Amino acid sequence: LKIFALNSNRPLAEKIAETVGVPLGKTSVDRFSDGEIRINIDESIRGDNIFIIQSTSAPVNDNLMELLIMVDALRRASAGMINVVIPYYGYARQDRKARSREPITAKLVANMLQTDGVDRVVALDLHAAQIQGFFDIPVDHLMGAPLLADHFIKQGFGSDDVVVSPDHGGVSRARALAEFLKAPIAIIDKRRPRANVAEIMNIIGDVKGKRCLMIDDMIDTAGTITLGAQALMDAGATEVYACCTHPVLSGPAIERIKKSAIKQLVVTDTIQLPKEKQIDKIEQVSVGPLIGDAI
Amino acid sequence: LKIFALNSNRPLAEKIAETVGVPLGKTSVDRFSDGEIRINIDESIRGDNIFIIQSTSAPVNDNLMELLIMVDALRRASAGMINVVIPYYGYARQDRKARSREPITAKLVANMLQTDGVDRVVALDLHAAQIQGFFDIPVDHLMGAPLLADHFIKQGFGSDDVVVSPDHGGVSRARALAEFLKAPIAIIDKRRPRANVAEIMNIIGDVKGKRCLMIDDMIDTAGTITLGAQALMDAGATEVYACCTHPVLSGPAIERIKKSAIKQLVVTDTIQLPKEKQIDKIEQVSVGPLIGDAI
Ligand SMILES: Nc1ncnc2c1ncn2[C@@H]1O[C@H](COP(=O)(O)O)[C@@H](O)[C@H]1O
Ligand SMILES: Nc1ncnc2c1ncn2[C@@H]1O[C@H](COP(=O)(O)O)[C@@H](O)[C@H]1O
Repeated sequence: LKIFALNSNRPLAEKIAETVGVPLGKTSVDRFSDGEIRINIDESIRGDNIFIIQSTSAPVNDNLMELLIMVDALRRASAGMINVVIPYYGYARQDRKARSREPITAKLVANMLQTDGVDRVVALDLHAAQIQGFFDIPVDHLMGAPLLADHFIKQGFGSDDVVVSPDHGGVSRARALAEFLKAPIAIIDKRRPRANVAEIMNIIGDVKGKRCLMIDDMIDTAGTITLGAQALMDAGATEVYACCTHPVLSGPAIERIKKSAIKQLVVTDTIQLPKEKQIDKIEQVSVGPLIGDAI
Repeated sequence: LKIFALNSNRPLAEKIAETVGVPLGKTSVDRFSDGEIRINIDESIRGDNIFIIQSTSAPVNDNLMELLIMVDALRRASAGMINVVIPYYGYARQDRKARSREPITAKLVANMLQTDGVDRVVALDLHAAQIQGFFDIPVDHLMGAPLLADHFIKQGFGSDDVVVSPDHGGVSRARALAEFLKAPIAIIDKRRPRANVAEIMNIIGDVKGKRCLMIDDMIDTAGTITLGAQALMDAGATEVYACCTHPVLSGPAIERIKKSAIKQLVVTDTIQLPKEKQIDKIEQVSVGPLIGDAI
């Protein structure tokens, strides 16, 4: 068994390798002068069972191409099994045609990985579980909820609190977390009465005088989660916490979180956070042991 | 017949559309907040014969993904034939394993385009003609040499001048250009006597008292071409001109060309040159009519 890290998230790869108890494989992944990716695998891998760790987070196209080129090099070097661990699967939101003449990029990515010769995929909290069906090879789908639940239970969260889904698409995820906490759930139901009119936030369930814990699979621009937090406070919640598996945190996200009613945001390390996104309000828990145990 | 431009080289796409006599198709190709590519095709294309114009020049991974996602969207919208015109084919130099455990990225790109549902490829001066064989679909392979020859013939070049290949790998290309000019050829033969010793430039052929015209398929960091120009001057050439199809011009290229013995460098517009690379010494001729006539 050999584990190789590419460039998206080396710290996570190191934690995974530590859990498994092997050193990271020797490889150099850098650029030619014109920006094309140059990969050298610096040790023999003939017949080996290989795990590549790469999140296709931003810069998504570069990280995806690194992964595809690495798989190509491994296959041509007669690797045994090629397993790719994709802690964050980019383009997952483009998983259906919401309008005419849209691409389904999540399927395109799946096709490219398969054509490339990948034998097995390990993924974490796919935006839609249906993405598993985009592959004809085994997909191990791990969940971040138990890990996040653990963290909050240690902080004293439980049946007196309420787990909140920030929209009607995320109710199952809220239910799963609530199961661990033995807590009730609530749902923020957004509705736009007419085009170009502000959304109305309606809270289904009882949050008055309660501590709330919002959960989502990813937080991108943080609009949904910060507006939701305010709606919960307006409805009489005492405190609002939030958590997600994938801290995408693009554009205005960090500013919004800083200014928001959210007391603390707990995220995992499927996406490496640059220094400027490591603010006091955000705490990271590692999926390294979870993934390490699964491979 | 519909022609769509992506973001790598809109000016060339417009010239091609002009030659063909159709307007460019309506589409928007931009980014979501997290950097993922968003594509909308804004007109019906059901059953149509489609041409997409996209060079996979820098940023190569972004330009390649734009192309793949566009093809995915077109196919899912029931396009008839999908032809992709790739004036500059990125990753073409990674066309073989020069060492153990290297990828063959040029083949990976070919596989991705085929899996994606491309019906036909139009390319220009592929770094190796063998890349045609990486595809199992028709590849039309156009040549820039006649266009470059035309330009120099109009400037009075001919049988009194010498066409020079900057290395032994490019002799056939020099021969093709020399054919048009009815000129003799010469070859710069580089040799490194021992490791860590400067290369020796040996000129095969007669250049003394002659005007020289160097030709290559692409100029990247411009090391080969500028050192070659100096070697020609040292061997008694009166003037050195240079030309290539693909102006990659990365890293130190522009500085080297400015300081070099090259009097003028003629390139095509397969790669769009940003303002800072449009210097006096560099002249661009368009492949728009050539491609337009071929499609
Ligand atoms: N990177 C992205 N950022 C924001 N929206 C996206 C992104 N990728 C896809 N989408 C859009 O998000 C919608 C799907 O999101 P969801 O309803 O949460 O599954 C679709 O309409 C997509 O066009
Ligand atoms: N983008 C690139 N820039 C510089 N060298 C490259 C690039 N891509 C591949 N190569 C290397 O260039 C060599 C092939 O170039 P050539 O001998 O001119 O066909 C191979 O050893 C490749 O590893």
